[in-house]
Amino acid sequence: MTELKNDRYIRALLKQPVDKTPVWMMRQAGRYLPEYKAVRKQAGDFMSLCRNADLACEVTLQPLRRFDLDAAILFSDILTVPDAMGLGLYFEEGEGPKFARPIRSKRDVDNLIMPDPEGELQYVMNAVRTIRRELKGEVPLIGFSGSPWTLATYMIEGGSSKAFTKIKKMAFSEPQILHALLDKLSDSVIDYLNAQISAGVQSVMLFDTWGGVLSPRDYQDFSLQYMAKIVAGLKRTYEGKKIPVTLFTKNGGQWLESIADTGCDAIGLDWTIDMASAKARVGSRVALQGNMDPSMLYASPQRISEEVATILQSFGQGPGHVFNLGHGIHLDVPPENAKVFVDAVHELSAQYHL
Amino acid sequence: MTELKNDRYIRALLKQPVDKTPVWMMRQAGRYLPEYKAVRKQAGDFMSLCRNADLACEVTLQPLRRFDLDAAILFSDILTVPDAMGLGLYFEEGEGPKFARPIRSKRDVDNLIMPDPEGELQYVMNAVRTIRRELKGEVPLIGFSGSPWTLATYMIEGGSSKAFTKIKKMAFSEPQILHALLDKLSDSVIDYLNAQISAGVQSVMLFDTWGGVLSPRDYQDFSLQYMAKIVAGLKRTYEGKKIPVTLFTKNGGQWLESIADTGCDAIGLDWTIDMASAKARVGSRVALQGNMDPSMLYASPQRISEEVATILQSFGQGPGHVFNLGHGIHLDVPPENAKVFVDAVHELSAQYHL
Repeated sequence: MTELKNDRYIRALLKQPVDKTPVWMMRQAGRYLPEYKAVRKQAGDFMSLCRNADLACEVTLQPLRRFDLDAAILFSDILTVPDAMGLGLYFEEGEGPKFARPIRSKRDVDNLIMPDPEGELQYVMNAVRTIRRELKGEVPLIGFSGSPWTLATYMIEGGSSKAFTKIKKMAFSEPQILHALLDKLSDSVIDYLNAQISAGVQSVMLFDTWGGVLSPRDYQDFSLQYMAKIVAGLKRTYEGKKIPVTLFTKNGGQWLESIADTGCDAIGLDWTIDMASAKARVGSRVALQGNMDPSMLYASPQRISEEVATILQSFGQGPGHVFNLGHGIHLDVPPENAKVFVDAVHELSAQYHL
Repeated sequence: MTELKNDRYIRALLKQPVDKTPVWMMRQAGRYLPEYKAVRKQAGDFMSLCRNADLACEVTLQPLRRFDLDAAILFSDILTVPDAMGLGLYFEEGEGPKFARPIRSKRDVDNLIMPDPEGELQYVMNAVRTIRRELKGEVPLIGFSGSPWTLATYMIEGGSSKAFTKIKKMAFSEPQILHALLDKLSDSVIDYLNAQISAGVQSVMLFDTWGGVLSPRDYQDFSLQYMAKIVAGLKRTYEGKKIPVTLFTKNGGQWLESIADTGCDAIGLDWTIDMASAKARVGSRVALQGNMDPSMLYASPQRISEEVATILQSFGQGPGHVFNLGHGIHLDVPPENAKVFVDAVHELSAQYHL
C-alpha cells in the first residue's frame, strides 16, 4: 500500500513528535455540507448511501476537499453491526434509527447472527477499500465501531433513548442476559474492526456515546470491560504499521484512568473536561483527542480561534494531542466556520511543537 | 413555629451527628404514585395543580404517608419564575414545557418583569405556608428553584432541548445578552428563595439540570458564578435556625471543588460519581446528597438493598450524607420499590452513625 503523505494524525496518537497538531472533526462528512446533501439525495435513504461504496467514498472525501484535515473517517454508521446481526435497522424521518426486532430475552440474544465482515458487512469493507484507493495516501483513514454498551442501548430500547429504561431494567434485574449480549457484540466488533484493518483503515476508534449514563461501577461492568476485551482482540499492527486505537466515552471524563488501563493508544474527550487536567491525569500513558464544544462553531471566526488557542495552551508543549471537537459537528454549522477551526489549529499549534 | 420532630435531614446537611442517614427522593411527589395522578386529574393541568395551595399541599404530603421520608419538598416547578417574568409557560401533552415568548434579544431581556414573590408568585408562597401548617413539624420542608443557567436554557430554546443550540449561539456570539439575562434571573431567584424561606421552607436547593452541558470554563462563567451569587444573597439563618443550601449540577461531578467554593452547605450528586471519591474531594467542606441511579428502582428488593449498602459503605462513617437518588424518580417505578429503598437506607445506615 502507498506510504502516507501526511502521517501527523497517526504520529500524534502514538505520541511521536509532529510539526503541527493534527485535526479532524467527528461527523466531518455530513449534513452541514451542501455537497453531502446532494449525494444523500442521489442515494435515497441513509443506509443506501452507506451500502454504496462509490457514494460512501465520495462523501468521505468531500470534507477533505474543503478543509486541511489530517484524517479521513469512513462514512458509515455505528448500527451496521446490530443490523447485520438481524435486528432490521430502519430510519423514520426525523425520528432517528429504529430496530424492527429489538432484544427482549435471552432467546433473542441466542438468535443473533454473528455477522461475517466479508458477508453481511462486506459493503463496509468495500467502502474502506474504495476510500483507501481514492485517498492515494494523502491522509490516514479511520475505521470505527460503536462500543458494545452503546450498541446494546439501541438494540434493547429499539432506537434512541433518553432515560435508557429498558436496558437498565435488564442490567439491574437480568444482568446475565445483558452480559451475554455484550459478549456477543464484543466478538462481533473485534471481527468487524479487524476486517476494516485488513481492508485498509489505518486507525480505529470505538464510540461509546452512552457509557456516561452509567454509575462508575456499572460503567466498568457493562461498558469498559467489553471495550478492554476489544482492545485486546484487535490487530494492533498490520503490514508492519501500528494501528492506533482510540476510545471515546461521552461524559466519561471522570473515568480517564480506567479507560487508559484498557491499553488503548488514545482517549477521546468531550468538552466537559479541561485538557490540562486530562493530560495531568493520563497524558503520560495515552494520547488525547479533543475537545472543543461543537457549538463553538456557531461563534465568530475570532472567537473560534480564541477557543482553539485556549485548548492548545491547555494541552501545552509536546506530542500526544489530536485536535477535534468534543462531539460530532452540528448539522447547521456554516462550513466556513469549520474551515476557520481547522486552519486555526494548524496555525496556532506550530509553537507547541518546536 | 413548631419545632421539628425529625431534623435528621437538616442536621446531616450541617454535618452534625445523626442516628441514621436521612433520605428523600427527588420528584418524590409525582406521577409514579396513583394518588398523585388522581389529584392531578382533579386539578386539570399541571400549572393549575401548582397554583392550588391545598392540592399542592396534598401531593407534597402523599409520599410521606407511604414512605418513612426525612424531608418533604414543595410541589412546584422550576419554570414558575420565567413564567412570572412574562414568558407565557404552557405544557403540550407529551411535549414538555414550552414558552410562548422565548428570549431572542437584549430588548426581550430588558422587558422581563422582576416578579414579586408575594405578587405573581404568591401562589407558591401560599403553597409553602399551607404545607408547613399541615406538616405539623414532622419533617423539614425543602424549597427550591432552577439555577439561572438552567432556567435560561428553557427561556432561550423555548422549551426542552437536546443540543442547546440557541443558548450556545448566544453564549458564544452575544455573551453580554446572556449575562444580562443570567444576572436578572439571579436577582429574581434570590428574591424567590428568600420569600420561600420567609414563608416557611427550612432548606433550599438549586437545581442546575443543564450545567453539565458546558465546558469547565463556560460552566464557571455561565452557571456557577450565578449560583454563587445566589448562595451569597440568601438568608442563611431565619428565626434563629440555619437554612442549609444544596447545589445540584447534573453531570457536574468533575467540578465538585468549584461548587464547594460557592459556600453552599451541600452538593447534590448524580450517580456517575463514586461517593467515596466525592467525599475525599470535598467532604471536609460540604455535606453530600445522593446518589443511587434512579433506574435501580426497577430492580428486585434485594438488588435495591445491595445498592443502598454499597453507597452507604462508600460514604462510610460519620455525618454529612443525605441519601437520595441521583436524579428524579422515574414515573414508571413501582411505589413498593421506593419503599424498599427508603427503608433500606434507614436499616442499613445506623451502623455508620455509632
